[in-house]
Amino acid sequence: MKLSAHKKNGGYTLIVGCGRLGANLANTLYDSGQNIAIIDKNPEAFRKLSPSFGGIAMTGDATEITTLNNAEIEKATAVISVTNNDNTNIMVAQLAKEMYSIGQVIARLYDPERECVYHEFGIDTICPAVLSTKEIDKLLGVPEAE
Amino acid sequence: MKLSAHKKNGGYTLIVGCGRLGANLANTLYDSGQNIAIIDKNPEAFRKLSPSFGGIAMTGDATEITTLNNAEIEKATAVISVTNNDNTNIMVAQLAKEMYSIGQVIARLYDPERECVYHEFGIDTICPAVLSTKEIDKLLGVPEAE
Repeated sequence: MKLSAHKKNGGYTLIVGCGRLGANLANTLYDSGQNIAIIDKNPEAFRKLSPSFGGIAMTGDATEITTLNNAEIEKATAVISVTNNDNTNIMVAQLAKEMYSIGQVIARLYDPERECVYHEFGIDTICPAVLSTKEIDKLLGVPEAE
Repeated sequence: MKLSAHKKNGGYTLIVGCGRLGANLANTLYDSGQNIAIIDKNPEAFRKLSPSFGGIAMTGDATEITTLNNAEIEKATAVISVTNNDNTNIMVAQLAKEMYSIGQVIARLYDPERECVYHEFGIDTICPAVLSTKEIDKLLGVPEAE
């Protein structure tokens, strides 16, 4: 795969999981001028990408080293794992951080209980339930906790 | 049901759906001093409520008027529908707004395409994928769109 041939200027971001969030991120980050590769196990998932998306869509299991190497993960400035499976996201994030020393690693975790653990490893996590709670609190005018 | 017997001071918020988000909201809003009732079809879902939750947990289908009447929806200052089903959330939100003229109605919609429609009806919507995208953009230092 000639990943470099597709590159524009700016950083290279690797996204794992082409669900609603992954596809949305791929589209908006590509539009903002970044080089994007997105991996999903299911090629059907790439339908959610916008027709104007000019990054790379790769079918594969991102918990396998071969897939990450094919995606030239070592060149990524950021790796974002947003599959629908917390365990997959954790595994990808840990590989990216520990094996490839990627500067910025972000994982979506549905289970907010796990969040704090990963901050210690330098992994940023986002939890939809926590974000939604904050947004609803804002709409209701509830003062922010913590 | 003697809903009023359970009431503390402050508003009464009715939450529909006791998933991760619904339970999280119920716990935090109750702790902030609000009267809370939470409805779910599945009584097992209420296990996610904190042991200190002192609101009301009602088993029932919130798309049925009887359930909403049992929950004394007409006394609610806010109705928040956060089941895992967009259609249910839309239906509950519309009933709350149109039939009961509830002041603040919030629905979670997984599908961001639908969001704009409901703003016209005075229904606030939150979309986890949109919130997560914004949060990731913030972590990546991408300037906000729009």
